[in-house]
Amino acid sequence: MNSIIYEDNQIYIQQEQSEIPWLKIFTKEPYKELGDLPKELREKLWKVYDTVEFHMKFYYKPTKINMASFANVLPRVHIHVMARFENDSYFPNPMWGEKLRDANLNLPSEEKFFKELLIALNK
Amino acid sequence: MNSIIYEDNQIYIQQEQSEIPWLKIFTKEPYKELGDLPKELREKLWKVYDTVEFHMKFYYKPTKINMASFANVLPRVHIHVMARFENDSYFPNPMWGEKLRDANLNLPSEEKFFKELLIALNK
Repeated sequence: MNSIIYEDNQIYIQQEQSEIPWLKIFTKEPYKELGDLPKELREKLWKVYDTVEFHMKFYYKPTKINMASFANVLPRVHIHVMARFENDSYFPNPMWGEKLRDANLNLPSEEKFFKELLIALNK
Repeated sequence: MNSIIYEDNQIYIQQEQSEIPWLKIFTKEPYKELGDLPKELREKLWKVYDTVEFHMKFYYKPTKINMASFANVLPRVHIHVMARFENDSYFPNPMWGEKLRDANLNLPSEEKFFKELLIALNK
């Protein structure tokens, strides 16, 4: 199940169920490709991305942030933001790549992360 | 082998050898994460991305554009831009996912694409 953790009049953010912190940023108005977004909405999308990336880095201290936009099955552009750890099940492969181990990540409280992120997004 | 097909004082673009059109946009100054780039360089990077995406769409008429930033092995942020086709070897999986078939894509001349793209990037 995907759950919406944030929305405003232009954007919403869904959580992807995963062993890692993984959020997906959607525009409410659907577009096929990034280049199809109006300039103002693109700027808004990257502003939201920056806030998500900053707070993932600050809170989880991941080895690396991963970002991607595919939408091949349903051609509706959205941005994946993932906090990656050197001991997660796929690292250094992308989360869509070959699984390399069975990880047992001991991450801090998701609720606290969402709380801090929402405060920042609502500023 | 990766070959550099474009460079200016801030950015360079490498071609990834693949059955699909696949370019990687790097900043010359290395940064770990997207959020670490100075604002002006971020804007430049997305301007170059937009030009690459537009010309890939215009020239190859792909089913979908894919975009990603991982850099897990060497933590130096760069943007992958890929033209995906419903009959390529991995579609609808990401290019890092499971291979689904042996594709035989019949794509138009790469040289002509690069020529058009370079004219646009140098404008």
